[in-house]
Amino acid sequence: MKKFLNSAETFIPDVLAGLAAGHPELQVDVGQRVIRRAEPPRPGKVGLVSGGGSGHEPLHGGFVGEGMLDAACPGEVFTSPVPDQILAATKAVDAGAGVVFIVKNYTGDVLNFEMAADLAGDDGIAVETVLVNDDVAVEDSTWTAGRRGTGATVLVEKIAGALAEQGADAAAVAAIGRRVNDTSRSFAVALTPCTTPAAGKPGFELPDDEIEIGVGIHGEPGRRREKLRPAREIVAEALGVILDDRPIDPGERAIVLVNGMGATPLSELYLVFGEVAAALEVRGIRIARNLVGNYVTSLDMAGVSITVCAPDDELIRLWDAPVRTPALRWGV
Amino acid sequence: MKKFLNSAETFIPDVLAGLAAGHPELQVDVGQRVIRRAEPPRPGKVGLVSGGGSGHEPLHGGFVGEGMLDAACPGEVFTSPVPDQILAATKAVDAGAGVVFIVKNYTGDVLNFEMAADLAGDDGIAVETVLVNDDVAVEDSTWTAGRRGTGATVLVEKIAGALAEQGADAAAVAAIGRRVNDTSRSFAVALTPCTTPAAGKPGFELPDDEIEIGVGIHGEPGRRREKLRPAREIVAEALGVILDDRPIDPGERAIVLVNGMGATPLSELYLVFGEVAAALEVRGIRIARNLVGNYVTSLDMAGVSITVCAPDDELIRLWDAPVRTPALRWGV
Repeated sequence: MKKFLNSAETFIPDVLAGLAAGHPELQVDVGQRVIRRAEPPRPGKVGLVSGGGSGHEPLHGGFVGEGMLDAACPGEVFTSPVPDQILAATKAVDAGAGVVFIVKNYTGDVLNFEMAADLAGDDGIAVETVLVNDDVAVEDSTWTAGRRGTGATVLVEKIAGALAEQGADAAAVAAIGRRVNDTSRSFAVALTPCTTPAAGKPGFELPDDEIEIGVGIHGEPGRRREKLRPAREIVAEALGVILDDRPIDPGERAIVLVNGMGATPLSELYLVFGEVAAALEVRGIRIARNLVGNYVTSLDMAGVSITVCAPDDELIRLWDAPVRTPALRWGV
Repeated sequence: MKKFLNSAETFIPDVLAGLAAGHPELQVDVGQRVIRRAEPPRPGKVGLVSGGGSGHEPLHGGFVGEGMLDAACPGEVFTSPVPDQILAATKAVDAGAGVVFIVKNYTGDVLNFEMAADLAGDDGIAVETVLVNDDVAVEDSTWTAGRRGTGATVLVEKIAGALAEQGADAAAVAAIGRRVNDTSRSFAVALTPCTTPAAGKPGFELPDDEIEIGVGIHGEPGRRREKLRPAREIVAEALGVILDDRPIDPGERAIVLVNGMGATPLSELYLVFGEVAAALEVRGIRIARNLVGNYVTSLDMAGVSITVCAPDDELIRLWDAPVRTPALRWGV
């Protein structure tokens, strides 16, 4: 294993210390592992909390800030945050209007966020939960019952965050988050496995000339392995699966995220985006907004995920709203 | 070689097609390989042009836009753009106030930008050149006479771009670019080599437990190879070399860029930044501004470069000025 770290044991606190040093606009509690906005919560604003295993940076800590999350709870690498940690974040951001959890559909995350919601309820804080399950590659997996939550999480957090910032109530914020998830689908392909600091060796083996079609964000298996193919063919398959599951009519719009899994150069991500754009154009689908880069990663995995969302006018408007976080920023 | 591409021959045009599809605010001439702002140049504004070999994305095309570059010329992978290409970019952005070239110190780039400047002069366009040579790892290299130009290029392009946007003349824009370079130093370390699409195999070999100290952005050799060490020790050596060469007094400020070489996860980059911040704090140096991410990459190399700039008030003010490019955006 070759990584920039001091020790596997101190990996997460060392990463959090760096995030804190780089972003004084965040308050990073390294001991409790809660990342939140430095300014106190605005009275009456719905609090937005997400979290999950570490190793997917910038998700979720990089999306804390104006117009997006109020707090994020990073677990150990590829391990859910614990209920007490989520509860601490919930209490810290509650400003009397309730809190919305954004949870990726992995068994551990679902369980721990549910327990935290119960604990928060005992403390008089009403919690709504948005479950993200956009990955159409597999139904059920080693980590999940049902579909996995992946790239759409960025869209859900951005759009729900914008509505929360505008003063909507918890039910409305949760509803729009669910709407984004319902109209979004993702599919991922890996060129290489990833290595957790604790394990010190790749989570799975992939021969030098093979790729994993439909891989998950922890390196969990997808649909099959096969020989490397041209990017155009890989994109055609991914889009086929995505649009079969959630068709978009010609003339309609899409928000497209082409996401790197951590070790894929930006040049290749733009190349993939170009293929997505060409393929959607043939189908008469217009890309209204796009994002190309590393947003939901899998440590040092080389791979790409494609997320397509079919937005209405309100989702586009909220997508365009100002956002100021370490990883996503415009309008301010 | 495992990469997302259609063929090695079409790699650059396919990447440029994706950049064009994703950024309608840019005008990308895929045939001539010139990336520029879609809106025509503002009369009287100094034009800012940079370029170099491809493979370092987002450098330089990702830095074209309001408050930064007017045009970028990407060459083949790790190969200088040609004089005619640079001349075309120069003519396209000239608005009567002359053009400033920002050139990284590699023999091919220096030669071709010089020839383009001569050709532009023949056409009545005055050109000033800022040479970037911030890499203190080696003096002379397989690609360079003198020091290599690396991470400081981002700072030079941002700060000179801000001054150009504010209407300064070519001499002033070039002078501030040189000032940024003069006060900036960089040092890089690689965990893995990189593979160009044309070669199809790594440019050098690096054993599973060794790292290259002082590596260049084309994978060219640094100072030595050695066993992997804790991030803290690597950072201590890099900062030692940087600050020996360009001391910063206690109480003074720094702009710090912790840059990934393409395949380094963001978590590790933040971890490295945390170590830089802690080490500078011990020296009494305050980090006034920072940037952590992939900005000057080397294809799929896992590695990190550290750039430290000692800014005055004017450089900080220009750093903070609005910028709207694919890879760097704030204030708009």
